Amino acid sequence: MEQQTPVIFAKELLVHWQGHRSLTRRVIEAFPEEQLFQYSIGGMRPFAAMAMELIRLASLGITGMHTGKWDVYDSPLLEKDTPPATKEEILQLWDILTTKINTIWPQIRPERFQEVDKAFGMYEGVVANLMLYWIDNENHHRGQGYVYLRSLGIEPPPFWDR
Amino acid sequence: MEQQTPVIFAKELLVHWQGHRSLTRRVIEAFPEEQLFQYSIGGMRPFAAMAMELIRLASLGITGMHTGKWDVYDSPLLEKDTPPATKEEILQLWDILTTKINTIWPQIRPERFQEVDKAFGMYEGVVANLMLYWIDNENHHRGQGYVYLRSLGIEPPPFWDR
Repeated sequence: MEQQTPVIFAKELLVHWQGHRSLTRRVIEAFPEEQLFQYSIGGMRPFAAMAMELIRLASLGITGMHTGKWDVYDSPLLEKDTPPATKEEILQLWDILTTKINTIWPQIRPERFQEVDKAFGMYEGVVANLMLYWIDNENHHRGQGYVYLRSLGIEPPPFWDR
Repeated sequence: MEQQTPVIFAKELLVHWQGHRSLTRRVIEAFPEEQLFQYSIGGMRPFAAMAMELIRLASLGITGMHTGKWDVYDSPLLEKDTPPATKEEILQLWDILTTKINTIWPQIRPERFQEVDKAFGMYEGVVANLMLYWIDNENHHRGQGYVYLRSLGIEPPPFWDR
């Protein structure tokens, strides 16, 4: 096999990413309000703080992919380390970002995915790999949310259902 | 942007996958022997059982990608639901599989990634997406392993270090 064989295409990757995001949204929803902000295992962050990290990374990330500017905060809520006050606010930020990603994605120059950039001023790599990193990071933290939910006696949404 | 823009290429995807596998191997190693097989939160499986699922999926998966046969068990250990008796045995299976993946990968026909197949006789999809599923599944369960380790007071290997 030619190692420069293309395996994943832009359209499929968007569906893949948004499929993951749709599942993570249902994990946020599955938490009772109080536990979303307070429940923790082993000194780890509550799931609300993880969710805000995911929103922050993806929001700054999609803009950075598109424009090369990695510090464009769409909302003051994205600038601070503390999550917003309610689950509803987090879900609203989530949904705004879903639309933002769908809007920006088709505007990204095709050659952009193979360009080298320094994401968030820190992480140098090929843009496609930078993006995979934050998709992976979401999957990683969502898996942790599953343990939180299970230990609270709550059945999480099935992993395979995107 | 043309939505058929190729974003991820075979060579990078292999590096990406093996990078994830290298991290998961270090998570297995980080567990004390007893907790690997017995520790559980919220009624979930011990990490040894998750690790064996990951080995089974990837081993049958890489063969299935290559040949279209999804039921080729390389070892009797992969056929049963119970994990082997020791961490060392799991790590040996892990390493055999690492070599197997590297050996088979360049033999996969380029057009194979876009073919539709039914993985494990059950999951129909484009081969590239079927494979992403089991990479994601590994990431998901490894994130759960991080919570197990943290709750045992053990520092997991850093997520960004592949």
